[in-house]
Amino acid sequence: MSTDPLVVFTPSGKRGHFPKGTPVLTAARQLGVDLDSVCGGRGICSKCQITPGYGEFSKHGVTVHQDALSEWNAVEQRYQDKRGLKPGRRLGCQAQVMGDIVIDVPPESQVHKQVVRKAASARAIIMDPATRLYFVEVEEPDMHSPTGDLERLERALREQWEIEAIRADQTLISKLQPVLRKGKFKVTVALHKSHTDAVARVTEIWPGLHESGLYGLAIDLGSTTIAAHLTDLETGLVKTSSGIMNPQIRFGEDLMSRVSYSMMNPGGDREMTAAVREAMNTLAEEIAKEAEIDANLIVETVFVCNPVMHHLLLGIDPVELGQAPFALATSESISMDARDLDLTAINPRARTYILPCIAGHVGADCAAVALSEEPNKSEDLVLIIDVGTNAEILLGDKSHVLACSSPTGPAFEGAQISSGQRAAPGAIDAIRIDPETKEPRFRVIGSDLWSDEDGFAAATATTGITGICGSGIIEAVAELRLAGLMDENGLIGSAEQTGTARAVPEGRTHSYLIQDATAEGGPRITVTQGDIRAIQLAKSALYAGARLLMDERGVDKVDRVVLAGAFGAHISSLHAMVLGMIPDAHLDKVTSAGNAAGTGARIALCNVESRREIEKIVRQITKVETAIEPKFQEHFVAANAIPHKTAPFPELAKIVTLPAPNFNTGGRDGGEGEGGGRRRRRRG
Amino acid sequence: MSTDPLVVFTPSGKRGHFPKGTPVLTAARQLGVDLDSVCGGRGICSKCQITPGYGEFSKHGVTVHQDALSEWNAVEQRYQDKRGLKPGRRLGCQAQVMGDIVIDVPPESQVHKQVVRKAASARAIIMDPATRLYFVEVEEPDMHSPTGDLERLERALREQWEIEAIRADQTLISKLQPVLRKGKFKVTVALHKSHTDAVARVTEIWPGLHESGLYGLAIDLGSTTIAAHLTDLETGLVKTSSGIMNPQIRFGEDLMSRVSYSMMNPGGDREMTAAVREAMNTLAEEIAKEAEIDANLIVETVFVCNPVMHHLLLGIDPVELGQAPFALATSESISMDARDLDLTAINPRARTYILPCIAGHVGADCAAVALSEEPNKSEDLVLIIDVGTNAEILLGDKSHVLACSSPTGPAFEGAQISSGQRAAPGAIDAIRIDPETKEPRFRVIGSDLWSDEDGFAAATATTGITGICGSGIIEAVAELRLAGLMDENGLIGSAEQTGTARAVPEGRTHSYLIQDATAEGGPRITVTQGDIRAIQLAKSALYAGARLLMDERGVDKVDRVVLAGAFGAHISSLHAMVLGMIPDAHLDKVTSAGNAAGTGARIALCNVESRREIEKIVRQITKVETAIEPKFQEHFVAANAIPHKTAPFPELAKIVTLPAPNFNTGGRDGGEGEGGGRRRRRRG
Repeated sequence: MSTDPLVVFTPSGKRGHFPKGTPVLTAARQLGVDLDSVCGGRGICSKCQITPGYGEFSKHGVTVHQDALSEWNAVEQRYQDKRGLKPGRRLGCQAQVMGDIVIDVPPESQVHKQVVRKAASARAIIMDPATRLYFVEVEEPDMHSPTGDLERLERALREQWEIEAIRADQTLISKLQPVLRKGKFKVTVALHKSHTDAVARVTEIWPGLHESGLYGLAIDLGSTTIAAHLTDLETGLVKTSSGIMNPQIRFGEDLMSRVSYSMMNPGGDREMTAAVREAMNTLAEEIAKEAEIDANLIVETVFVCNPVMHHLLLGIDPVELGQAPFALATSESISMDARDLDLTAINPRARTYILPCIAGHVGADCAAVALSEEPNKSEDLVLIIDVGTNAEILLGDKSHVLACSSPTGPAFEGAQISSGQRAAPGAIDAIRIDPETKEPRFRVIGSDLWSDEDGFAAATATTGITGICGSGIIEAVAELRLAGLMDENGLIGSAEQTGTARAVPEGRTHSYLIQDATAEGGPRITVTQGDIRAIQLAKSALYAGARLLMDERGVDKVDRVVLAGAFGAHISSLHAMVLGMIPDAHLDKVTSAGNAAGTGARIALCNVESRREIEKIVRQITKVETAIEPKFQEHFVAANAIPHKTAPFPELAKIVTLPAPNFNTGGRDGGEGEGGGRRRRRRG
Repeated sequence: MSTDPLVVFTPSGKRGHFPKGTPVLTAARQLGVDLDSVCGGRGICSKCQITPGYGEFSKHGVTVHQDALSEWNAVEQRYQDKRGLKPGRRLGCQAQVMGDIVIDVPPESQVHKQVVRKAASARAIIMDPATRLYFVEVEEPDMHSPTGDLERLERALREQWEIEAIRADQTLISKLQPVLRKGKFKVTVALHKSHTDAVARVTEIWPGLHESGLYGLAIDLGSTTIAAHLTDLETGLVKTSSGIMNPQIRFGEDLMSRVSYSMMNPGGDREMTAAVREAMNTLAEEIAKEAEIDANLIVETVFVCNPVMHHLLLGIDPVELGQAPFALATSESISMDARDLDLTAINPRARTYILPCIAGHVGADCAAVALSEEPNKSEDLVLIIDVGTNAEILLGDKSHVLACSSPTGPAFEGAQISSGQRAAPGAIDAIRIDPETKEPRFRVIGSDLWSDEDGFAAATATTGITGICGSGIIEAVAELRLAGLMDENGLIGSAEQTGTARAVPEGRTHSYLIQDATAEGGPRITVTQGDIRAIQLAKSALYAGARLLMDERGVDKVDRVVLAGAFGAHISSLHAMVLGMIPDAHLDKVTSAGNAAGTGARIALCNVESRREIEKIVRQITKVETAIEPKFQEHFVAANAIPHKTAPFPELAKIVTLPAPNFNTGGRDGGEGEGGGRRRRRRG
């Protein structure tokens, strides 16, 4: 047995014997222990902090003495004086093994640290970014043995970091010589190591030790809004999140209007490409400013988006996506220079990764949801719905995953709704209707109070009550049904039929009046028969998509439902189910994943191996095209009704006591009531 | 033994048995016979033409019958009607093997055809360009099995051409869908397969079969002129050559003036970079126009240049090249997108290859000379001199090669010479002085007549006689020495000393009058004492560089001398040796290689494997830095004289009959004669 001291690292449990005098960092590297270092053991970056455990190896009967590490040295003292070390901490590159010892690597010293996504979330992100910092000492030039500065940098990275090959573009080479000389041939380089390319790219170079951090942008490029998360590539933490409107809205509210714009206007696609790229630069500038960082420190971006946004971002005319067979120009993931997207506000050598698309209607955003929610690893059968203007739907478990998209239209986002508006302060986002009195109470964004609580008027004085947003309209329609104000076909009863003056005539149909502030110059907020039809169409499309996947899978029910999307986070599961938006499931099996697409983008940003993972998952997903599937139409029509199904929901049974009404009068069939018979025309 | 028919291909001699009905192209591919095809055997590109040999296999005793190939078919007839086939030719993809046969692959059907460089040249260029055409049939999209168009193109290339992986940038992807549809999913792609990257890049895509060719530019980027050769990448032939002045001249005539400009003017390097890049675009546009081709068909460029031009082209401040230790920013070869050099006049996805630099003063131009002249393969010891503003010198044989550069200054190009001018019509480029009468006779560029021949006046009437160019001044100085008008130290004798009125006083020294046309308003052309000093300085630097390499190698003489460079092509070997420009060698061992750097660029353009070769050669070359080598100064001073060495030259012995003069009068030593003592200051 070795007489060299035994070193045990926690939490990994890795252990080995090392000669006296071995620096802890060296021991960690030889054992493959996850201990960070940017400066390569020169005592200047302080990333390799460790906590020596003095005492006994209880399990091994080995006594550890105070002198099991070399003495505190001048380098550590200098760092202590300058920055301070937590009590008990040592620098791994300075402290040498002198006797048996247990060494703990605290989370912040681990390269592959875990970043908790959020409390409700299934798993943590393991940090493993594509771009990392390396401090090197480069040999000075010698005219008797002439080599380029780049070649000596390459040699230093090979010898000091075992990085075999690097690539530097001419913009990097142009700054190489002054930076090397300014740093006296000691420099920090940011290297991007992709998951598909053995050659590491030099993204940036700084004189001396670079300590101002390194950032990436996880971007969820939606049809309506563009959201970006500025993420620290060392800690994985989101420093700042920011969003702006997608300026392409001026070319068309929804995706198909934009495809049409491109079809009708030569060069229209280029206009839209230019608009979104310009917006990306604005967003990047704003987020860097807000976070008070140099935008040059943003060295990576990851995009998730639907196929039309994907093509327009890349400068591809989306015209083929507007007509069968909905051919993508490219479906696989894309790794490219951000500057080739005209993304000039960030580091000029920043790289961009765009997740793969699943099909012509199922984009990189859906792939990101799959990466985040991992249906492919689920033990039970999960239905994941990313609710937006188009709904992306995933159904599967670890044996098999199916995907489709469904053209819900913008009603769920408050568009095409008479009193509808975007989710913004002043919008009603939750509503309850008393089944007895038929009176409403509601909340508006910007306040936690219900309208019948004290202080509501004061709390909403600044925002006012301006309209009703997506989650509000869904709740309102469901509540109308629960309160017996609306029948299975979606018809609102008259004042006589319902016994409330809030049922007001509107042409040949009735509306439900939530609030009339016209006397004070405010808006009159109602739910009209037309609003209900729009919601019925949207929910039918969503439900039909889910059912289609269930048919493909050969099941009648799912084990659990995950609602994703910024909007999904605000939908009341109960109301969604009353409405028939989603297939029946136990209410406690319906969860919200928040912005799962955005989370998927963050995962791809923070963990380069996850890119390989999602590329593999996407290849294994079976795509179902709703547009040409006759069953989709059948399900769509069948899903139009809003049945009075309280049985599976004990929560509903408590609330709903009234018999199911039917307000259909005259000879017309309920399903053919005004608006109800319109079959939603799909795309183009 | 197989009973299948025997097929023997000539000129390769490859042979094999194939089942009846095997297309000749298939047989050729299976045997690795070099038979071209762009369309992959679909009978549309006609690149696979072969000549069947009917008759007997004389060596093998096998009789070949007329029916050894399948009958002439409709595809061949269609091609014959449309384009015509040479008599006896068949299409290799149509003609099937039916019996024993000899098949000749004519040169134009070979992919790796040899291109003769020129009569005097050592070796041919073997065609093996990085970019080639591939015709493919791409599967149409299927919405039930959605894949991107790019991914289906990739699959087609894999299945039809065994190309494993491709890369397409977003500018290519943007045009992919319309081109695929225009070509009904039959397209031709230009693929660039680099020598360092396993992934092939899609440079261009055309609907159907592309038949308008593919071109590359071999560019010799000199300090004074930029020369480009538009080369057909299928045949290897130069379609058009063109050149323009390097606009950087306005920032400084020679390299060191440009480095100084950059040092003295912040942003000066960027001005010079912009100037040369703009000139490159102009040149590319002009050459495409002259050749009457679409500039979009130019898909590759290769650059050779000295280190300062190299850095300025790449956008690197050359300041480090102006001071010891003359560090290059990067020395290795560079493969990059041409658009990153702002080279927008050609195909937007064109690739650029820049040869490696050897040292801070020995550039990619010298590497190109090495690639062209192959000192590393020479059996005897060869000295290669690329004469320009700076001379690049290579010395070696297959055991070892040395390289240096020597600051000759621009005198050899006619600059800093009193009657000097660039080599252009009207310039005296050859001169002889009668040793008896001391009278000159000369030729001017634009006419083949000597000035004492009939018709000379008429032949030069349009150009006039405007000055004396580089080769003219070298001959003039050598002739002055041979005619006894000038002594060993370079002093011109007086009229009394020399016995000719053409020796005219000019201050304290004498000039030799070649022609005085001032009476007719023309120039007075003389060789002044100052001109001789300038030539002495230049030739001393050149000789000293060569001697330094010889010292390093430990030799006193070389087996042969190669003069390269556009100027080298015009130097008279005899006069160069009289002058002491080059070490002594037998006159028939002094050859001109023409524009060897340009030829090296063409080789690297036409043969991608040669890039690997030159990169390897450059790593093995030993660089000698003249700037700090004391021996260089010794040789420089020692080489100042112009000795009267007729012994080794029987040709000279015939001409030179006079005793060696010495016109040094008074106490001054010859070496310290006016101007002779000035030591040429090197760089910055």
